[in-house]
Amino acid sequence: MTDTDDEYRPGLEGVVAELATQATIEETLFLLYEDRLPTPDERESLRASLAANRTLPAEALAAVRATAEAGGDAMDALRAAVGAAHVDYEPGDPAADALRAAAVVPTAAAAYWRYHENEEPLAPNPDLRHAADYLRMLTGEAPAERAVRGIETYLNAVVDHGFNASTFTARAIVSTESDVLSGVTGAIGALKGPLHGGAPGPVLDMLEEVHESGDPEGWVHDRLDAGERLMGFGHRVYRVRDPRAAVLSTAAEAFYAEDDAGFFESATEFESVARDVLRERKPDHRLDTNVEFYTAVLHAGIGIPRELFTATFAVGRVGGWTAHALEQLENNRIVRPRARYVGAEGRRYVPDDER
Amino acid sequence: MTDTDDEYRPGLEGVVAELATQATIEETLFLLYEDRLPTPDERESLRASLAANRTLPAEALAAVRATAEAGGDAMDALRAAVGAAHVDYEPGDPAADALRAAAVVPTAAAAYWRYHENEEPLAPNPDLRHAADYLRMLTGEAPAERAVRGIETYLNAVVDHGFNASTFTARAIVSTESDVLSGVTGAIGALKGPLHGGAPGPVLDMLEEVHESGDPEGWVHDRLDAGERLMGFGHRVYRVRDPRAAVLSTAAEAFYAEDDAGFFESATEFESVARDVLRERKPDHRLDTNVEFYTAVLHAGIGIPRELFTATFAVGRVGGWTAHALEQLENNRIVRPRARYVGAEGRRYVPDDER
Repeated sequence: MTDTDDEYRPGLEGVVAELATQATIEETLFLLYEDRLPTPDERESLRASLAANRTLPAEALAAVRATAEAGGDAMDALRAAVGAAHVDYEPGDPAADALRAAAVVPTAAAAYWRYHENEEPLAPNPDLRHAADYLRMLTGEAPAERAVRGIETYLNAVVDHGFNASTFTARAIVSTESDVLSGVTGAIGALKGPLHGGAPGPVLDMLEEVHESGDPEGWVHDRLDAGERLMGFGHRVYRVRDPRAAVLSTAAEAFYAEDDAGFFESATEFESVARDVLRERKPDHRLDTNVEFYTAVLHAGIGIPRELFTATFAVGRVGGWTAHALEQLENNRIVRPRARYVGAEGRRYVPDDER
Repeated sequence: MTDTDDEYRPGLEGVVAELATQATIEETLFLLYEDRLPTPDERESLRASLAANRTLPAEALAAVRATAEAGGDAMDALRAAVGAAHVDYEPGDPAADALRAAAVVPTAAAAYWRYHENEEPLAPNPDLRHAADYLRMLTGEAPAERAVRGIETYLNAVVDHGFNASTFTARAIVSTESDVLSGVTGAIGALKGPLHGGAPGPVLDMLEEVHESGDPEGWVHDRLDAGERLMGFGHRVYRVRDPRAAVLSTAAEAFYAEDDAGFFESATEFESVARDVLRERKPDHRLDTNVEFYTAVLHAGIGIPRELFTATFAVGRVGGWTAHALEQLENNRIVRPRARYVGAEGRRYVPDDER
């Protein structure tokens, strides 16, 4: 694809669970950008830089408001907001642009939700950690520490995932020596697509139905007997359980340990029953829970609305987009695949009366 | 790359010059979308649909205004405008989204320039052809027919060019089943980069210097003696003269025939002299004029300001972006290249005092 394939070094292999469940998102971003964990001073410096960049210009907020008021998608609001994040900021320094992009995504997502709920958006609080401020701007309240830990584990778990479509889009854009904000704006557009950003709302609908039924096993059989698919199982790449599902399951378990364990328990019972039944009915398929399954469980507990599931994915993945964009620019070659023309030849521009 | 490579059928091969110099941009768009030329009724229907879609929402114009007032790049304004073109429009139907995207690009480019010149943007005129309305919104005056023909020939000549970085970006974005407006927003970001959108401003600077010197041959020798490069020569793909350069040279010749032929003549003399001298000095290289050379000549005559050269490229290329996006969606498979991890392994999340 590009000559930088061999350079791919996200520095996360073998450490996903350990990192995701312990690191702040600032530490993870530093690791992706610098290929090592930060010292306490470096961590605080990155936190302060992100915080100072979180404020969106009025023009970006106006587009977010208009999107929400028209009943538009949160990802359209995000694309418009990041696409306009340059108007009170001068793009051009790749590392600064990466921070700017990573900083504004949660602000845009939270503002979309506030407008959606007919409330004014909250200004960023530069004293907070990035993840904590996202939850605060979203809910209007200081988040509980277990919620911050839960969302940080989620953001860390989804921050990067190889040359997925949105990350590859960001690399293709900056490969022309365009700016990182342009790369992230394009990546948001790619993540918007359901084949990539997914549709975790339906997973949550299903889990709530299962929980309310009080009979996960019976519910699974009823659905499969009716020829319906179960949401939240299977992945295009993984033939075993998605390793991120395990991390998110642990995070959800920790989150729900303090409160409302019933919903978590019915989700895990459902997972266990559904896996057994799927293996029995489809022995040739390995259908394990994917990342969407425990994302829905965790987000429901933390209070992330369904409408923001994909936008919250972007809050995490922007770390990977920007790290890949910086890596691409470090050793750049333009992405320009060859194509073969197989259409008609020798055609003419003919006058109207011959058409 | 994708399984649609074999489907590539822009329908333009062998007919570039014939089409570019005669067709309206509406005809070219119809050809790209439908793989045949339109009947007069179909052409008028497409013209009216484009015209009806040209108006940008206030939020998009506000971002364009803020960009221009802050001295920002026209491509940043375009990205913000198309990224917000959904707020008074509901995306989702690919063919309609393609028309919407193609319709708003010239409006955004012209509005940027009006704000840049401290003037209010002009509303689109739904009675005009697309190319004519672009020039009218830009200059504030009804354009001469030779200017409309000139810009249409340019737009047709650059409308599509294989899997270039911006077109490939649009395909990667919609391959997630995202919408065409998202694809075009990403593509604008890719075209912004100088390795793709180029820098035709410097070519025009050079041509004006040559013209003022009154001695193209002496000017060429002076520059090459000083070890400087000539702008507007050479292309990454073409080893012979870019076929689009011939089309644009013809278009420029026709445009300047009516007026100010001196500038055109010094440009052609410069081309001829520079080619001879380059062949003499660098016999191993074939350095012919590229598309930027006569783009600069033609745009200077029509009155497209340097600051809008890349944005005007987008006014044309959006036809290719949208046609490719529609083709991708017709027979889709997600773009997700494999990558090989070559970084460190077995790393640990270590406490602060071990960093």
